[in-house]
Amino acid sequence: MADEALFQFLHNEVIQYVNSAESGETENGRCVSKLENMGFRVGQGLIERFTKDTARFKDELDVMKFICKDFWTCVFKKQIDNLRTNHQGIYVLQDNKFRLLTQLSAGKQYLEHAPKYLAFTCGLVRGGLSNLGVKSIVTAEVSIMPACMETFSFYLFLHTHTHTHTHHTIYCVSESCLRYHQRPWSPPGVLIRARPNSTLSAT
Amino acid sequence: MADEALFQFLHNEVIQYVNSAESGETENGRCVSKLENMGFRVGQGLIERFTKDTARFKDELDVMKFICKDFWTCVFKKQIDNLRTNHQGIYVLQDNKFRLLTQLSAGKQYLEHAPKYLAFTCGLVRGGLSNLGVKSIVTAEVSIMPACMETFSFYLFLHTHTHTHTHHTIYCVSESCLRYHQRPWSPPGVLIRARPNSTLSAT
Repeated sequence: MADEALFQFLHNEVIQYVNSAESGETENGRCVSKLENMGFRVGQGLIERFTKDTARFKDELDVMKFICKDFWTCVFKKQIDNLRTNHQGIYVLQDNKFRLLTQLSAGKQYLEHAPKYLAFTCGLVRGGLSNLGVKSIVTAEVSIMPACMETFSFYLFLHTHTHTHTHHTIYCVSESCLRYHQRPWSPPGVLIRARPNSTLSAT
Repeated sequence: MADEALFQFLHNEVIQYVNSAESGETENGRCVSKLENMGFRVGQGLIERFTKDTARFKDELDVMKFICKDFWTCVFKKQIDNLRTNHQGIYVLQDNKFRLLTQLSAGKQYLEHAPKYLAFTCGLVRGGLSNLGVKSIVTAEVSIMPACMETFSFYLFLHTHTHTHTHHTIYCVSESCLRYHQRPWSPPGVLIRARPNSTLSAT
């Protein structure tokens, strides 16, 4: 319990500090981007330690399963609740009790702050995957603030194809991604929507 | 192992970020101060969780023992190696294998960076003590960079007396503290010396 608290408290402090240091930017873009980069480097470091004694991964799905089980458990003390894929490079990870968000108050006025609390985690996964040889774009989505352990869906997009192809794929899957790519700050980052998660489902 | 790594990596990222955000200041003063404040708030939060089910503390020494055992173990996965006191409000905590410093390279050129790696921990202890009703000044001191697990001494000063009295006490104990109080940034903070720890010893 205490270990998690340490990470959680430090994470909150980092967000607060980065937010104040990067103030003045529109849409918290720079703040989110900084946090994502921090997460990326931490993820890179972590995966090196984790995979020190593991066997070679068979394929991308095997890597994803490792992320969902071992990696996630180590960071968040629980596994990913649901992993879906279209077997074409798109993966959707769902955590129904995302630790870094369940502490926030419910209410629409707090929804705009959620991206900051997701950015580090997005980077963490992207960094981990990156060091396992899987280039990815990771975006997170929250349908509603988790009032009493509501569903928090963590969407993860992988691309192992060409850049154009990938974008095409993502556009097909979710209009939210389109909005994400139109943002002023460079991908990867975090996206948040105010309606229930429906557009993304494994096919 | 992995939990520690998460904290460690995040801690490093925070230092790097704060350092770059606060660049331009002399002696890294602002950077150290920011990190110390972060640690303070994290320490406050942590101690609330830790002491939820513990019995009331008898006295200051009892509080210090708790910090040295339970608190330190939770954060750094090991106890403080040595606790000394003069029974007049001054405590010296010694950690012979301080986790956040053993990763750094040995060498005098890195010694100037050490305060940044100690500031968060100083704040952590100060915040924890603060929420236990013990006002304190926490300074850290490194004699030499821990090449192969050299001694790292973590000096902790408590004051429960009046402000003036306390300062007097501290001045008596260590000339390093005097230097510390002459720094441009406000206490509490971190001090580093380049010679073996000798001035401070329990009487």
